[in-house]
Amino acid sequence: MATLSNSTNIFWQDCQIGKPERQKLLNQKGCVVWITGLSGSGKSTLACSLSRELHSRGKLSYVLDGDNLRHGINKDLGFKPEDRTENIRRTGEVAKLFADAGLICVASLISPYRRDRDTCRAMLADANFIEVFMNMPLELCEARDPKGLYKLARAGKIKGFTGIDDPYEPPLNCEIEIKHEGEVCPTPIMMAGQVVSYLEKKGFLEC
Amino acid sequence: MATLSNSTNIFWQDCQIGKPERQKLLNQKGCVVWITGLSGSGKSTLACSLSRELHSRGKLSYVLDGDNLRHGINKDLGFKPEDRTENIRRTGEVAKLFADAGLICVASLISPYRRDRDTCRAMLADANFIEVFMNMPLELCEARDPKGLYKLARAGKIKGFTGIDDPYEPPLNCEIEIKHEGEVCPTPIMMAGQVVSYLEKKGFLEC
Repeated sequence: MATLSNSTNIFWQDCQIGKPERQKLLNQKGCVVWITGLSGSGKSTLACSLSRELHSRGKLSYVLDGDNLRHGINKDLGFKPEDRTENIRRTGEVAKLFADAGLICVASLISPYRRDRDTCRAMLADANFIEVFMNMPLELCEARDPKGLYKLARAGKIKGFTGIDDPYEPPLNCEIEIKHEGEVCPTPIMMAGQVVSYLEKKGFLEC
Repeated sequence: MATLSNSTNIFWQDCQIGKPERQKLLNQKGCVVWITGLSGSGKSTLACSLSRELHSRGKLSYVLDGDNLRHGINKDLGFKPEDRTENIRRTGEVAKLFADAGLICVASLISPYRRDRDTCRAMLADANFIEVFMNMPLELCEARDPKGLYKLARAGKIKGFTGIDDPYEPPLNCEIEIKHEGEVCPTPIMMAGQVVSYLEKKGFLEC
């Protein structure tokens, strides 16, 4: 029931109702779908479309949106490198809890640094971390500029903006890549379909 | 879809699938059951028993255990007053997310300071925060001492231990009080039954 941690007086509490029981109740497998990409690449659009599609199949998902979390659990953090890293770490820890609860947790964050994403991957059993790379050209994201942030960054009014004066490190080994095909942008439904197909194939939509 | 925050470049993302849709899928209402009390007062026992009882009724709950979180999202925090406060704040924020996801989130933490608990209460619509006070005499908790921590605290090997050399502030307005009746300790099933009855009466177990 409880074991003592070496360095501190913190115990680990186990419960008879665990992940397997919750997964059975939900008839799905808990996992993290981690959507990474530039601002304006369509992360939130995919997250919403994906949650709609999963809901229509009777599956329970929850979206952790990077911006929304900065109003809550991460509201004490800014945009310094160490704050960005802590922002991602905490999001990863929360996502891990949701996956343990049996949900399909959809995390949607720029998460520009490979190391930070890999830290989150390492928190979960590898197969339960599904990295989705929104591989959209910077020019397209900047032309969309849905929040007007590229304009501010180009004008020097935002410093350290990913893609402008801060790097984005594309994944080397992501599970899913969403691409702009020639002139054709995938629709939200197409993007969600690509992820749902993957989840289905890997057995996450049943238990 | 997105509105700009005044002070920062952080937007709020809304999705068509929200709390009402998830609650309908689960046939329950999301809420936070916050269990507070001394070490050894039976918080974890109640949390486990409650999650079993809810699961047997087909309801989805998730236990946030204070000790377990200190291995994850709160692992950077110690036991200084400001760290304790931040520990509770983050737990409250995570619990709020779980309630928003539609789950019955059971938070089990000593959470000794009234102000910190009230901060968490204020994060949610009042009716969705159900404070459960494990009102067990210190002597009983110390006699149980399931983790051997009272012994260490009495020997001066742990400083700032709640109930010994750090105060526990009992709730003034909790929704549920679990009491030792004369010589009779409530069983885990009796304690869980008290909480489940409350949840049922208040309509949380249907949607």
